[in-house]
Amino acid sequence: MMKIDVLTLFPEMFHGVFNESILKKAQEKDAVSINVINFRSFSKNKHQTVDDYPYGGGAGMVLTPQPIYDAVDTLTQKSPATRRRIILVCPQGEQYNQEKAQQLSKEEHLIFICGHYEGYDERIRYLATDEISIGDFVLTGGELAAMVIIDSVVRLLPGVLGKAESYQQDSFSTGLLEHPHYTRPREFRGMKVPDVLLSGNHQKITEWREKESLRRTLLRRPDLLEKFPLSERQQKWLEELKNNN
Amino acid sequence: MMKIDVLTLFPEMFHGVFNESILKKAQEKDAVSINVINFRSFSKNKHQTVDDYPYGGGAGMVLTPQPIYDAVDTLTQKSPATRRRIILVCPQGEQYNQEKAQQLSKEEHLIFICGHYEGYDERIRYLATDEISIGDFVLTGGELAAMVIIDSVVRLLPGVLGKAESYQQDSFSTGLLEHPHYTRPREFRGMKVPDVLLSGNHQKITEWREKESLRRTLLRRPDLLEKFPLSERQQKWLEELKNNN
Repeated sequence: MMKIDVLTLFPEMFHGVFNESILKKAQEKDAVSINVINFRSFSKNKHQTVDDYPYGGGAGMVLTPQPIYDAVDTLTQKSPATRRRIILVCPQGEQYNQEKAQQLSKEEHLIFICGHYEGYDERIRYLATDEISIGDFVLTGGELAAMVIIDSVVRLLPGVLGKAESYQQDSFSTGLLEHPHYTRPREFRGMKVPDVLLSGNHQKITEWREKESLRRTLLRRPDLLEKFPLSERQQKWLEELKNNN
Repeated sequence: MMKIDVLTLFPEMFHGVFNESILKKAQEKDAVSINVINFRSFSKNKHQTVDDYPYGGGAGMVLTPQPIYDAVDTLTQKSPATRRRIILVCPQGEQYNQEKAQQLSKEEHLIFICGHYEGYDERIRYLATDEISIGDFVLTGGELAAMVIIDSVVRLLPGVLGKAESYQQDSFSTGLLEHPHYTRPREFRGMKVPDVLLSGNHQKITEWREKESLRRTLLRRPDLLEKFPLSERQQKWLEELKNNN
């Protein structure tokens, strides 16, 4: 069973997400055990403060190393895991992607450190095995980024997803964006389902889906086509698509 | 006041995040009004189903257009907003970034459509003004992506961030990654604060910070340097840094 510890000043933020849907099921199935800890409780300061003014001046506050170091010490001493990552979520980290999610899903113990408003004292970075950013945008804190990473990792753990849930041809797992889906009704507000999907001809349907997947990737994310090794058939279709545009 | 509506099958997921920290404060200050709606309640089907089997076969389920169309109709009719976006969160969307956050923060009304497990019937995409992906990884649903977008947008609304919170030299707002921060103690577990920050020489401190910001960006995210117009001084330092590596 994977063990996940989250260090945060806002533990309440996690309740809705960790107690619903896949994350709830994964905990019930004992695929993962998730523990959210307010690292303020590790502060040795008499007022339990966790931040202080920056050396060199400036208006913001900076998280001090002591509470986070002591919290991580306690968590690592309590756990016999040998495969462990200590993850600092921050905009300066490496860009998160599906490959990283796969990697993390192989570990035994993940500790997440979430800052909020404040910057981290640089020495906290030395503690981390990984610094991860989920994208080039600014969030109020690391909490939402940690939830995103945890959701994407936990759904990869053995036994977590049921058949129906795991079916979706996940974009980024195949390397191409998904083809369009249609369900009932056949016509909705004048918009019709493409004939081929109603034809019953499975070969044609498979071909249509593969082509539409290529088309969508070409139009929206041509960068993905460079990373993904295409089959000969796909190469041919791709050339056709390019010539028809 | 900005109005945000979120359409989801898992409204409980949002409680922790929307009732804490900046999102809570922003609602208390009437900078934003956030409403989470279970679109299942708009289903005209007698069993209130919202998904169905895909035309053309396949094991997964697909969200039907009717409940989502009717929910969006109701929400747009109720709101007199003229500047409105209808945002579908999905892995096939455009890549989210700080520039997009800035754009969205100028709108009056945002409606988010969150799928979960299932794919969207293609006709739901026609309803959206924007399709957004927060990154190249697979999540269980659009809910966490919507929370991420909402957090990053709401903190940009006028009056939401206090001085201390907004101080942080946000990475991606300046175009460079932030410089290192240090706070007390001067020495922690043998790790010392750099002398320059204790020097009281403000010119040197500013210069050190600017150089470290450049250094970090060069080492970790050289792609950002190509997008960001550097000053002459920064150009010179960047050349020095490259030569010293």
